[in-house]
Amino acid sequence: MTTPLNERRIANAIRVLAMDAVQKANSGHPGAPMGMADIADVVWREFLNHNPTNPQWANRDRFVLSNGHGSMLQYALLHLTGYDLSIEDLKSFRQLHSKTPGHPELGYAPGIETTTGPLGQGIANAVGFALAEKTLAAQFNKEDIKVVDHFTYCFLGDGCLMEGVSHEACSLAGTLGLGKLIAYYDDNGISIDGEVEGWFSDDTEQRFLAYGWQVIKVDGHDSDALRAATVEAQAETAKPTLVICKTIIGLGSPNKQGKEDCHGAPLGNDEIALTREALGWTEGPFEIPADVYAAWDAKAKGTASEAAWNETFAAYAAKYPAEAAELKRRLNGDLPAEFLAQADAYIAEVNAKAETIATRKASQNAIQAFAPLLPEILGGSADLAGSNLTLWKGAEGVETNPAGNYVHYGVREFGMTAIANGVALHGGFIPYVATFLMFMEYARNAVRMSALMKQRVIHVYTHDSIGLGEDGPTHQPVEQIASLRGTPNLNTWRPCDTVEASISWKSALTRSEGPTALIFSRQNLPFQTRTADQIADVAKGGYVLAKEKGELKAIIIATGSEVSLAMDAYAQLDGVRVVSMPCAEEFVKQDAAYREAVLPSAIRARVAVEAAHVDYWWKFVGLDGKVIGMTTYGESAPAKDLYQYFGITADAVVAAVKEITA
Amino acid sequence: MTTPLNERRIANAIRVLAMDAVQKANSGHPGAPMGMADIADVVWREFLNHNPTNPQWANRDRFVLSNGHGSMLQYALLHLTGYDLSIEDLKSFRQLHSKTPGHPELGYAPGIETTTGPLGQGIANAVGFALAEKTLAAQFNKEDIKVVDHFTYCFLGDGCLMEGVSHEACSLAGTLGLGKLIAYYDDNGISIDGEVEGWFSDDTEQRFLAYGWQVIKVDGHDSDALRAATVEAQAETAKPTLVICKTIIGLGSPNKQGKEDCHGAPLGNDEIALTREALGWTEGPFEIPADVYAAWDAKAKGTASEAAWNETFAAYAAKYPAEAAELKRRLNGDLPAEFLAQADAYIAEVNAKAETIATRKASQNAIQAFAPLLPEILGGSADLAGSNLTLWKGAEGVETNPAGNYVHYGVREFGMTAIANGVALHGGFIPYVATFLMFMEYARNAVRMSALMKQRVIHVYTHDSIGLGEDGPTHQPVEQIASLRGTPNLNTWRPCDTVEASISWKSALTRSEGPTALIFSRQNLPFQTRTADQIADVAKGGYVLAKEKGELKAIIIATGSEVSLAMDAYAQLDGVRVVSMPCAEEFVKQDAAYREAVLPSAIRARVAVEAAHVDYWWKFVGLDGKVIGMTTYGESAPAKDLYQYFGITADAVVAAVKEITA
Repeated sequence: MTTPLNERRIANAIRVLAMDAVQKANSGHPGAPMGMADIADVVWREFLNHNPTNPQWANRDRFVLSNGHGSMLQYALLHLTGYDLSIEDLKSFRQLHSKTPGHPELGYAPGIETTTGPLGQGIANAVGFALAEKTLAAQFNKEDIKVVDHFTYCFLGDGCLMEGVSHEACSLAGTLGLGKLIAYYDDNGISIDGEVEGWFSDDTEQRFLAYGWQVIKVDGHDSDALRAATVEAQAETAKPTLVICKTIIGLGSPNKQGKEDCHGAPLGNDEIALTREALGWTEGPFEIPADVYAAWDAKAKGTASEAAWNETFAAYAAKYPAEAAELKRRLNGDLPAEFLAQADAYIAEVNAKAETIATRKASQNAIQAFAPLLPEILGGSADLAGSNLTLWKGAEGVETNPAGNYVHYGVREFGMTAIANGVALHGGFIPYVATFLMFMEYARNAVRMSALMKQRVIHVYTHDSIGLGEDGPTHQPVEQIASLRGTPNLNTWRPCDTVEASISWKSALTRSEGPTALIFSRQNLPFQTRTADQIADVAKGGYVLAKEKGELKAIIIATGSEVSLAMDAYAQLDGVRVVSMPCAEEFVKQDAAYREAVLPSAIRARVAVEAAHVDYWWKFVGLDGKVIGMTTYGESAPAKDLYQYFGITADAVVAAVKEITA
Repeated sequence: MTTPLNERRIANAIRVLAMDAVQKANSGHPGAPMGMADIADVVWREFLNHNPTNPQWANRDRFVLSNGHGSMLQYALLHLTGYDLSIEDLKSFRQLHSKTPGHPELGYAPGIETTTGPLGQGIANAVGFALAEKTLAAQFNKEDIKVVDHFTYCFLGDGCLMEGVSHEACSLAGTLGLGKLIAYYDDNGISIDGEVEGWFSDDTEQRFLAYGWQVIKVDGHDSDALRAATVEAQAETAKPTLVICKTIIGLGSPNKQGKEDCHGAPLGNDEIALTREALGWTEGPFEIPADVYAAWDAKAKGTASEAAWNETFAAYAAKYPAEAAELKRRLNGDLPAEFLAQADAYIAEVNAKAETIATRKASQNAIQAFAPLLPEILGGSADLAGSNLTLWKGAEGVETNPAGNYVHYGVREFGMTAIANGVALHGGFIPYVATFLMFMEYARNAVRMSALMKQRVIHVYTHDSIGLGEDGPTHQPVEQIASLRGTPNLNTWRPCDTVEASISWKSALTRSEGPTALIFSRQNLPFQTRTADQIADVAKGGYVLAKEKGELKAIIIATGSEVSLAMDAYAQLDGVRVVSMPCAEEFVKQDAAYREAVLPSAIRARVAVEAAHVDYWWKFVGLDGKVIGMTTYGESAPAKDLYQYFGITADAVVAAVKEITA
């Protein structure tokens, strides 16, 4: 530490804002902001290329606070540098409807690039930002004009480094050589349980060298060292850089700095007074002197930076008008104008072909049809390309072609999904990621984060039930589909044939307001014949696939591989209709009249059939209905044996209908 | 490779059994067994201390196949060394009700120590085995007699090393110095997508050195090198050892070895014939020459080993009878005879105290009451001890006291849970692990594995809803409870006060047939008054907490923090009963008469209230009922503001009851 604490007035502004806001909220984490204030001072004032007056500027550097509990650090920075985040907003830290929730949340304060808090995912998002930047740059930059050219900065803590997702994401970042990713590790030796040495003794430098990163170790309170490290990090273009910053958590608090006490609780008024004294900070709570504000203010510099880039972009647009228009379109997240018509034409073609194939194969066909139309697609799978069927003829791995459109993520489901969230957040891409449905669970919280952040990430999950057969219960989903359906903002599709599969892909690609999970079978599924009206109704998530013969007495509801069982049962029954419900979330959004037309409320004889946990379906069949599905784990055997063994058959559906209509 | 392939008859037995069984099943993974056969030959024939005639021998070395898709390797080894696994069993590979499912499943073939397949969790289980061994040894061994003294061997592949959970578990294993853990990495450079260099370029040696492991690199087909490495690994008692074995996947298959083609598909009959030729193997499918069987047979050696240990144990029992009896009790998984009565006495005491405290605090009180009675408890938390309230007065960290009873797992939810599964599988312990309910998701598949394997692991999840307040939507569970309730074999408790919390702990501790999730509030919850009968009924999972005044017209079902809202509503309503349902899984196991008495089927006016996703509850309230709960993400604000904002209030319950009874 080269400068006495009381001479660090600029950095101290963060320290006091953090401790004061946490105190006022009576909850929060002052330690990390106080410990990282000096790092933030250097990175944000000297390096970060951003424009507080336009947080959406396309070529801004991205900043991610992976240790999101230190949110007051980021709020302080946004406020001080001139974003639309007032001192009143800081006073409302952690209050309902404020712009300053407990953790940084996308869409609340301007300048928040991603929602963090779930540890380790921020650095994985940052890998996604850097991957998106590198790929977009390779796709659009020209020898003479670079329009995509920014860094991704990330702060992270011990917790992020302990989490497995940091291994997955940082290992891949090293392999992919994401040279414009610069991460600062707040190496304060303290986690919530205390001094980490008893449970975290990694040599983190060696670990990241093993990943192929550049690693620089500095005193995190030494501005000169931090500056030199950042210059070195920027200069290394072939490797990401980890700057390991030895810091003192809660620096400035005479009695709590360096201890876990300041990690996740207010300092208390007495200690705050002592800290003010130690910092030489004479202003009251939430008071920042004008000269300190002036030192932080990044509005003019940011506006100039953006203006310079706008000139670059204008030159690019003049010389490469098509590319410029395409880049704009992609950054706006607009699909090509002709896509909808092309998609519908493809669906009509699929309908005409009437193929009986696995829906994972139908999915691959859809990718093959749509991906050439959508250069924004950035696909990938967690080492299951040949099983998930996520490769298409034009797919090129970014590991060999930086301008490619496919990522071989390796066996890294969580890292993959969190990286894809970063890619989507960056803009310019629609990522799809894939694994077996069961291993969605490894990535589960990143799936949720994509939904919480309303990002257009397409989660492709194949091998969706006991229908996968011999791999057995560790691979056979039971309760997973219900878990996805319960996730707010997520659409979950489980199509029954090629037509529904194609429509599910169209829905996912056009759904700009959130992510979609597409659930596909390993095994072949029979094609279902539909009228044009029925095809149009698929997008409504649930529709009458087979109308009752005679008066309606009972309803069979089915999805995916069980629709054909329902149809087989239907063939043996009068007065029964079959409702295919590939996307329950879309169905419940339809107006009451439509829902009533599909599921008349007077008809209580209802049977749902799905090779998944029965509990989800009580919502639709009620106390008088029956559900044919799973309540136990699966077994290892050929699929047809399993369907018999678990009693998921057309006969069982017929018997259930007869029983409840008797 | 020092020995020509056709002279490796003993190892080749594995190769042919694997390729033949996969071919017969027409699915499976021949590559890993064929590539690791030479490693297995050395480890299993020269080092592994086991007794095929008694797979339950307490002091056996543990063996974990973390790359579980290579299950035929393990089945071949069990068959060849003399376990009760016949050649007919191998012929039934991947068939219904066979002992040889697609992945190694606990409880199917004797000698399978843990279910593997979900990558990375096997090595984490192995860390748990080694931790259990070290801790149990420290608790029971004497200066003069060691009764707990075995190694844990683990095979793992590229996939395991890419998975984040391997980082979490191996980092902690290094910190804890688990010197008797020896892992063999099948470094074949191939994963399902092909040559891993495009997506996995870690320097794994450096990575594991960073974790504090001993690392030895060998040619995985050189028996002398493998032998020397294993000797060196056993000699290093302060560090776990990773033996990095350079191997050729599918070794022996002339056209497919070294390629991804042999990873996850049968070789085909033609290639099998060529492989037989290359191996110099003249016998037909599933035929093993007698001399090869003889070379593998470990029954006599194993019986002698166990007999020697039995003598050691007898000497121990003679000198330390109390410890011997206690060790036996613990290895049997029996609770102390007096525990049930002590637990009931504690529950009575809690009832008498009638405290209004957070259920996480009630949980801590229960731990404080029960842990001194149960030295088999091995607690822990993922760096949230002070929030989960999982520490108790007698808790001692194993990082400082090897005979301790608490693990500071660090911020490693997935690793923690998979390690705890290994601890439970080892025997001698009842592990509990803790994190915030939201971060259960990081560990989700390990929670499922504990349930699939029916292990007594207690998953403690606090901060269970919007009731946690200011930390906001990244920390506020919505759909998580339903996901747990849908998990077969898992019991999920969400108690409403101190009495239910204590009973939930008793239930979890006494439930030897599977895991339990205990879900606790951050905030204080009012004590509920109960009769002795009601207290007895809590264990049934659902019971009438407040009987209707007058004729029954409607039922309110609630759990946890919402029970008090239900009781407030009850005070304003006639003809309404309140059913507290802390464990729906136990409730649905009760006989029909009991369930009917609690929830009379004629009463369709039902309101469920829970600060979690509404969808779970349709099962109990049906199409005519109402559910008050969450359908969106939460927000960051004080808890009371959130309950108002999301409309989870007594008034809302009253209004709902009035509406459906109108």
